[in-house]
Amino acid sequence: MVAPSELEHSMEKMLLTFHKFAGEKNYMNRDDLQKLLDSEFSEFLKNQNDPMTVDKIMKDLDDCRKGQVNFRSYCSLIAGLLIACNEYYVKHMKKR
Amino acid sequence: MVAPSELEHSMEKMLLTFHKFAGEKNYMNRDDLQKLLDSEFSEFLKNQNDPMTVDKIMKDLDDCRKGQVNFRSYCSLIAGLLIACNEYYVKHMKKR
Repeated sequence: MVAPSELEHSMEKMLLTFHKFAGEKNYMNRDDLQKLLDSEFSEFLKNQNDPMTVDKIMKDLDDCRKGQVNFRSYCSLIAGLLIACNEYYVKHMKKR
Repeated sequence: MVAPSELEHSMEKMLLTFHKFAGEKNYMNRDDLQKLLDSEFSEFLKNQNDPMTVDKIMKDLDDCRKGQVNFRSYCSLIAGLLIACNEYYVKHMKKR
């Protein structure tokens, strides 16, 4: 068995982070999402001046209006943040 | 400045991996995609018995039929792989 690549290792980390906060139920409720954002994106949260940030993210991700963020919605959150980071990176940080 | 969380570190790795293969043009062509898959997902590729795997992935990701995989399409690839891994993880590996 070959050792996982760095990208595979990163993907594993993403998967396990979801399950750390989702627990046995396999979805995150609003409290779990708040804990994940506090723990993993504390700087991002601090820079949001809107106290409703977590509620707004929850509303965006909770497709079925059941108060649940499933793994697919979690992937959407990560992808959305990555796309925003990428725009900044390409504009300001990438060597031209 | 606070040190990045493990999840942020993983996201940075994902972003930089794209740019490593996309280079200055900010998209991957078929050759770049082949190199990324060979380098980062070699076991996955080895387990595909279909010699057209890379072409099929390219076709899925090349939204505009220009032979280009942009950052958004790359995020779709990663999300698709993650969702497949998650199904396996929940079914076979997660502690019940």
